[in-house]
Amino acid sequence: MKFMSFKLEDVEKYGVVDNSGEKVWDVLGLAEAAGKEIPATILAGIENDNQFYENMRELVEWGEQNGKDEYLHLLEKITWLAPIPRPRKNIMCVGKNYRDHAIEMGSAADIPEHIIVFTKAPTTVTGHEAPVEAHVDITNELDYEGELALIIGKKGRDIPEQEALDYVFGYTIINDVTARDLQKNHKQFFIGKSLDTSCPMGPWIVHHSEIDNPNALAIQTKVNGEVRQDSNTKHFIFPTEVIISTLSQGMTLEPGDIIATGTPAGVGKGFKPPRLLKSGDQIEISIEGIGKLHNTVN
Amino acid sequence: MKFMSFKLEDVEKYGVVDNSGEKVWDVLGLAEAAGKEIPATILAGIENDNQFYENMRELVEWGEQNGKDEYLHLLEKITWLAPIPRPRKNIMCVGKNYRDHAIEMGSAADIPEHIIVFTKAPTTVTGHEAPVEAHVDITNELDYEGELALIIGKKGRDIPEQEALDYVFGYTIINDVTARDLQKNHKQFFIGKSLDTSCPMGPWIVHHSEIDNPNALAIQTKVNGEVRQDSNTKHFIFPTEVIISTLSQGMTLEPGDIIATGTPAGVGKGFKPPRLLKSGDQIEISIEGIGKLHNTVN
Repeated sequence: MKFMSFKLEDVEKYGVVDNSGEKVWDVLGLAEAAGKEIPATILAGIENDNQFYENMRELVEWGEQNGKDEYLHLLEKITWLAPIPRPRKNIMCVGKNYRDHAIEMGSAADIPEHIIVFTKAPTTVTGHEAPVEAHVDITNELDYEGELALIIGKKGRDIPEQEALDYVFGYTIINDVTARDLQKNHKQFFIGKSLDTSCPMGPWIVHHSEIDNPNALAIQTKVNGEVRQDSNTKHFIFPTEVIISTLSQGMTLEPGDIIATGTPAGVGKGFKPPRLLKSGDQIEISIEGIGKLHNTVN
Repeated sequence: MKFMSFKLEDVEKYGVVDNSGEKVWDVLGLAEAAGKEIPATILAGIENDNQFYENMRELVEWGEQNGKDEYLHLLEKITWLAPIPRPRKNIMCVGKNYRDHAIEMGSAADIPEHIIVFTKAPTTVTGHEAPVEAHVDITNELDYEGELALIIGKKGRDIPEQEALDYVFGYTIINDVTARDLQKNHKQFFIGKSLDTSCPMGPWIVHHSEIDNPNALAIQTKVNGEVRQDSNTKHFIFPTEVIISTLSQGMTLEPGDIIATGTPAGVGKGFKPPRLLKSGDQIEISIEGIGKLHNTVN
């Protein structure tokens, strides 16, 4: 099941993609028609309701069986939002989690022994097909980073690796857009990673039940149609379970937390000479079993 | 005016410290008695209401004039909460913002040319007099860092330095508790800075109108009564205005954002041999014009 947030006639809604993959059920509309109460947002659903997935499934079945097609909208008619448009804390991001990317950004000495984690401000989040600001006044080195992101579904601390995937609600795609000059100058990555609109996220959250193994997914990034990043999450230095377990040591993870798992080789800065983003560039990140996240630099 | 959050008989409240400095007005109770609607929390007040300060002042005056002492509680009777118990994004923290601290953590080469900013998860926040977990299973090097923190009061981006202080709602004290071993091993500081209860905050927010110059405040940290840090914010490498202006370049600052301004020399790790925190240690941070933040390691 794919959970997405969107705008229709300027009203924020959320929904579930239908079987054709071309339409979305407006679940708030469906719920009203069915006389049911449901959470107001995907985030609220994940946070407050461990029956959220099951309830959404039943609601959509009810819509199908009762021909409630007035709540079914063509994806091409809606405006995309990030599935969680406003996270309740910063997005946590793993740095240098693919060997070849660590090397392209420096040398083999940059392959980490311990997980590197930095964050992006919630104000960075934007949706599929939304413009990414070029920020030309502040940076000359805007870069893309295609990444698998996981959404935590259950509160936990000191989570053992073997239980870690039980804490995942689902998966999405993130473009960890980075101002390389700011990242370098300011040493700690937060500033270079937190420009407004520097975290496109989506197009939806795929429920964990549809992803057998998050550590075996093809991941590819194209810029203007040309393949730049082409890898597989099996190359993670720290697999999903280790990321979740390590972050949760002494730090409580909460439903709705978003963790981006790092980017493979092929970022703009890794090329010689660098191939950084410029206004008009089209970035498309695809991850096996999830979909494609597309954005244009403004 | 000092804004504080607290619990009374297990109910979360907020209020304003009275003129004696020994009692707090329960403003939610006062508002109900006065038949007025006010925001449910300090954060909501800062976020949604640019008349918040003025409304609180009028409400407390009404309470005083009408002898509504049943809404006035002795500070020794309440349980302290952080003034913003649950921030809406990570706390932003400036690293190495005092020359002598940069040197004690390394050498003169560590004095930054550009502001260093990392974040602490919202789950780190705890109140005045609340226990700080020792986290002995995860760290052998828990350390204190006394810091002035500012609370943003107004949304803004690309804020010029000369207007920066107009964006401050008020000031508080933060103990940026740090696991030095995790901070070092994980390179980016987030993990070592984000253990649960590692951000004592309080005891209250002092309104900006009472602080003439945030860049000229005495700051002192005592551990078990012994002075460890003893400095003044006039020694900031990057003064408050520069911090706000730099962070806001391309990144929208929002009401309720919390920015810790860095710690002076005298942290435990700076001593030879290091004098790190252990269970039972009492930490007291005082900042001129604000007050004292006291916590005990559990």
